[in-house]
Order: sequence, then C-alpha cells, then structure tokens
Amino acid sequence: MADALNIPGMLSLAAGFTDNAVLPSELILEAMSALCDPTGSKECFQYGTNIGRFGLREEALRLLKTYPGEERLDLPLSQVAITNGSQQVLYLSAQVLCDEGDIVFVEDPSYFVLLEMLRGMNLRVLSIPRSESGAIDFEALETLFSELKVAGEWHRVKFIYLIGYFANPSSRSLSEEDKRRLGLLLRAQKRPIPVIEDAAYRNLYFDQAYPARSLLSLPEWAGLPVMYTGTFTKPFATGLKVGYAFSTSAEWMQNVLCVKGHQDFGTANFAQAILEHVLKADLYLTHLRRIRVHYKGKMEVLHRALVNSGLMEHGWSWSVPGGGLYLWLTGPDHVDTSLPSNFCKACLDEKVLYVPGDLCIAGGVRKNCVRLSFGALPESLLEEAAARFAAVALRFS
Amino acid sequence: MADALNIPGMLSLAAGFTDNAVLPSELILEAMSALCDPTGSKECFQYGTNIGRFGLREEALRLLKTYPGEERLDLPLSQVAITNGSQQVLYLSAQVLCDEGDIVFVEDPSYFVLLEMLRGMNLRVLSIPRSESGAIDFEALETLFSELKVAGEWHRVKFIYLIGYFANPSSRSLSEEDKRRLGLLLRAQKRPIPVIEDAAYRNLYFDQAYPARSLLSLPEWAGLPVMYTGTFTKPFATGLKVGYAFSTSAEWMQNVLCVKGHQDFGTANFAQAILEHVLKADLYLTHLRRIRVHYKGKMEVLHRALVNSGLMEHGWSWSVPGGGLYLWLTGPDHVDTSLPSNFCKACLDEKVLYVPGDLCIAGGVRKNCVRLSFGALPESLLEEAAARFAAVALRFS
Repeated sequence: MADALNIPGMLSLAAGFTDNAVLPSELILEAMSALCDPTGSKECFQYGTNIGRFGLREEALRLLKTYPGEERLDLPLSQVAITNGSQQVLYLSAQVLCDEGDIVFVEDPSYFVLLEMLRGMNLRVLSIPRSESGAIDFEALETLFSELKVAGEWHRVKFIYLIGYFANPSSRSLSEEDKRRLGLLLRAQKRPIPVIEDAAYRNLYFDQAYPARSLLSLPEWAGLPVMYTGTFTKPFATGLKVGYAFSTSAEWMQNVLCVKGHQDFGTANFAQAILEHVLKADLYLTHLRRIRVHYKGKMEVLHRALVNSGLMEHGWSWSVPGGGLYLWLTGPDHVDTSLPSNFCKACLDEKVLYVPGDLCIAGGVRKNCVRLSFGALPESLLEEAAARFAAVALRFS
Repeated sequence: MADALNIPGMLSLAAGFTDNAVLPSELILEAMSALCDPTGSKECFQYGTNIGRFGLREEALRLLKTYPGEERLDLPLSQVAITNGSQQVLYLSAQVLCDEGDIVFVEDPSYFVLLEMLRGMNLRVLSIPRSESGAIDFEALETLFSELKVAGEWHRVKFIYLIGYFANPSSRSLSEEDKRRLGLLLRAQKRPIPVIEDAAYRNLYFDQAYPARSLLSLPEWAGLPVMYTGTFTKPFATGLKVGYAFSTSAEWMQNVLCVKGHQDFGTANFAQAILEHVLKADLYLTHLRRIRVHYKGKMEVLHRALVNSGLMEHGWSWSVPGGGLYLWLTGPDHVDTSLPSNFCKACLDEKVLYVPGDLCIAGGVRKNCVRLSFGALPESLLEEAAARFAAVALRFS
C-alpha cells in the first residue's frame, strides 16, 4: 500500500490519517514558546519518568471524568500511564498477558493492526459472536465459552479486546447494555479474564458523546481487570504520538510498565509537556469542538457520494457513524475485496485505495467488506475517490 | 531510587541524565517556528512512517560518515531506522533474535537497563572475558565458545552486545584491534552470530572522537550481521527520545521493523522533524562542540574532587574517561556497594545516590564497583556530592 501511495494521482481512502487542514500547529507553537521560556526549568527537554508526566496523567483522568457517568471514577494515578500512542499499551498488554498459542477474543470486525500483532505473537484469535442487530450475541458467546471449557482450552483465554466507541473499522460503539451483560458473564467465571477497552476514537464524536460509560465506571465491572486505552494525539496531532492507559488492576499496570521500562523507559517527555500545556490551558476541548464539525462534514460528503453512486441499490450497505474516521461497507456476499482480488486490482487501476475488510476480521473469514476513511482527503477529493471506488464496486456487484 | 530522589537535599550521582543547563531550548524553538510556518504542509504533525523520516535517516548516515574511516560506508536507507531512543532497538532486537533460555554475551560491566531487560526475557547472560588491561581476553573467550559447543549450548547463543564508545557505565571504548580480532573469531564460526554495537555516547567525546571505526566499516566484519545503534537525543535533548539504528542485515532490520509496527508503527514524526531541521541547518554539530567542553569540565570537577578526597590512597581506582557521562570506580575487594548493603544505606544517610556496580555486571558477581554520573548536577553540587560519597567510601575501605 505504501508503494501504491507513490503512484501519481492515487487517492487514498485507506490510511487512518487525520486531516492536515485541522492540525493545530498554532496551539503547538504557542505551547512550545511557553515551554521554551528562558526563565523556565527546561525540564521538558530532559528525560521524564517511565509512567509519564504527573500533570498529563491528571489531565487524562480529568478528561475522562468530563463524560456523563464517569465523574466519580476513582483511580490512583499510579494506575494511569502515558504511552507511545495507545498502540503501545496494546502491545505491552499482549506481551505481559499471553504466551504463544494463547487465545484472545476480539470483535468482528476489529482493529487490523492489533490482529496483525496477535498473529505475529502466534496467538489464536476468536471473534465475539454478534447478532444481526450488531449487539453481542450472548447466547452464542456463552456456548463458545462452554466449548472452550469442554475442550480444556479455557485456561488459554488471556484477554478480550473491545473497542468501546466509534470503532476502527466499523465506527460502531458498544452499548451500555452489552457492556453490563458482558461484565455479569465475566463475573460468573472462576478466573478473571482481563479486558482491554480501546477508546481511541471516543473524543472524535460528531454531535454528541456516545452515551455509554466506560467499563471503568460500570458497577457490573467493579473488581474485574480492565485496561482502558486512549490517545491524546489522534484527535490533536498524530505526529506527537502520545497515548494513555487506565487500569483497574495495579498488577497489570505494573507489569506493563516493567516492559515499557525495557522498551523506552518513558514516552518522549517533550511531546507530553506540549499536550499537558494545551490541556491545562483548556485549549484541547476547544480544538476538539472545532474538528468534530469538520469530520462530520467530511463523513457526510463521503456518505452522500456513495449514496448517489447507487451502491446501496446494488447490495452494498453501511451505517452512518456518529463519530470516528471510517465508513464500513459490506458488499454482496460474492464480492471479494481482499488484497489479491481483482476488485483490489481494479481499484488500483482506478487509482483509489481502501482497506480490505478481511484484514479486520479474525481469520479473514469474510471478504466482502471494505473500510473507507474520510480522515485525510479534502472534501473535493473525497467525492472523486468515492466515485472511483463506486465505479469498481458497481462493476463487481 | 525514585523515592530517594524526593528526599530534600538528596544529591544524585546516579541517574544518567544530561545537564539541563545546556539543553538547546533555543534551537528547538527555532526549529518549531520554522516547522509551524503557516504556509508549510504541517506534515510533521501527522503520522510518519514506521521506519522513520527519510531526511532524518539520511542525516543519521551523514553524521556517521563524518567519523574518520567511515566516509565510504555504503548502506541502503532501508537498513537505517528511527526508533524511540536507541533503547527501543535493543528491545526489538532481543525480541526478534531470542527465545527464553537463549544466551547473550555482554561486556563486563554492561548497560544495566539492558541486563535488566535480558533478565526480564529469561535470557542467560554471559560476560566476555577481559584481561587486566581491559582488552578482550580472546583466549578465554575462545575457551568459553568451545565449552558451549561441547555442552551443546552453542546454538543457544543469539547475540553479542558491545558498547563501542565511552560505554555506560565503564566509559571504556572498544579498540579497533579488539573489534578486528572479534570479527575474525566470529567469521570462523559456522553460524553467524548477530552483534549489536551500541554507540549511544560516541558523539559525546571531550577532545577527540575515539579513533576506532564502527563494526559497520571494518573489513573483518564484512558480511556479518551487525546492528549499530545510536541516539540523536542523549547529546541534544533527552526529552525528544529519538534514536536510530543501522543494520548490515536486511533481514534483521525487517524483523525489527515488523515488531516496531506492532508497538507504535513509527516514532513521533514531530520530534523527528525537529531533529531533521536542526541537523540540516548544521546546528547539531555546533551544539555538540559546545557541550563537549561543558561535560569535560564537569568530569574534571568530579574526578578532582574524588582524587582530593584521598580515595585512591584507600584502594579505589578509576580511569579518566575521554567522553561519556560516567566515572566507573572500583573499590577494595571487600567493599560491598550493592543496593541492600550498609554502604548504600550510609550513602542514603549522607544524602548522595550512585548506581551500584553489581547491577551492571552479569550475575552481579562483583559488588565493589560504583557508577557515578557527572551529567546532571551543576559543578558546585558535584563537588559536594563527591565529598559525601567519598566520606562513606573512606569509612568502608
């Protein structure tokens, strides 16, 4: 895909980049100027600590508490860590929780970088069953649990990976009801199964925050081991790459930090200081308000262009998301959009890129889905890219 | 140690921090202002690539070629990567090269963060034998190799970790003769053993560069798998945390980048762009020239204070380094400076911190060494810290 991007005239609906047009270079420069004050301590240019800046960890907690129902969250700051993007804590968690051959549950679809990582670690990945409505199919899930127990494999299940809000790639969120029921199901197990809730896109809603609390604040989850991950930089400036994680388990966090100590002994202090400055000056939420309108507009442009192309009349479907950066399209069953497919070759010929959906599905068991991102391209090019994609999709439908 | 640092009046000769007084905040602000130019592309605030910025990788190669005998180094840029400090590539290399129970060779003493990481990965660590003069004892090393072969353990040896220049903690450098002989010894093995040459302190010489070429440029090493690691930020601003690695092995680099893709899919593009700007404007070497004088002066202050304390007359010895940030002291055999020792407690009581040498020695087999850093403290406090340390050392000698 990196090679294809260099082809002149190629339009990418693939990469999960944000829009350069709304990157807050002024806010960053303003923060930098304050931090470079010659009367200051310059401490931000020096090593920080492995767990991350105290002030930034406080701000991470403060930001979380702005969501309805999370105000009373009470976590010690020793269980809040700053990481190299939220990606790093996914890697670290898999490292400390799993051995080769262990089992991880994910959603269908799930984040393809995580799936690739789990494959790279020789882990077995199972999808949480969903009903037609998109809700978790608890009956099927319990059956799956039972089958693993009968097969003597239950002890190999090491964690569950959920994407709570405007998921990559589906843009779907997990309802509070599903979260509660899952908590009850896990409470009923003899062995506590660690659960990661990835909230990378939670702040990137369009009109209103998704109305489900995180696992951290739900009473059904009290005492269960949860790692909640987020990022300051996806909605701000991805080039800074600063994520954060909250864990309800002191031990899990300690183990994660131990391996982080071996990897980098702390995320770049300087990038953390910039974000801390912006957050403390209350400029972060102002920035978010501005970009929400921007991304909503871009989503609508891509959505309308696809609707107008007639794709829906030819067996393609997708939901209109309430946040995030993606449209998740499902084509007719017989359509194959995988990397080696003729569909993919045709799109390359038309000079448009997308993410083949099978990369986002454990085992790649379905090949008729596509992730389209409206993050990077400006609106005029989004329309053109949608037209190119739709021309191919109609031909294959 | 982190707790001890919070004790009022505590002076730390322990941490490998650099000196805030010479952190280049003006250079960073100048770079930022250029990068934030509203007519610019803002691309530095966006995701970069997993391998790192093309321009910064070019600059890394250019910097290496400024050293005598390295001018003709010819490496494809696909084998040059940018990492989260040089630490990350040590972690990544150990991950891709080793399985639990494998064997790694290190120097005696070696970098304690690496030793801790290797222990954490359940690897076995063996020290390369040294003669009295400090040179590698090749006879003893060959004997060790033979013993491993006889014991059927040779296939478990997965890499050798060397610190080429002004090592942490010994401040020792590897002579070109030792490097050449080691190359010949490794060439003679049936199986190529990967070698990491850590050059984190190479740029931090005082008067002149250490006159040995890196393994990358020595003919005896041609065709052998080498990973050379360095950092842009230890000598510049540790808070930016940007390292680099050169590998003579395309496969090794590819495997490292694959795991890096799972950890963070690229080091913060923004910090890389700042460094690229500073390097391209030829301000980096100007900065280095300035701080070399600074650290040489601080080294001399610490050295003289210890000499004047009379430690050498009581069985303590150390070499005067030609670069780096550390003095490596060896006390009388009976002295125990380890963390649980009375010596260590006495230093805490005197409010001075050091790194116990046994942490830097595989297996902790000698306890009479100490690492003192002259990086962070201003000169006046260096003298006071040295006096406190010497008072304890004299008492225990």
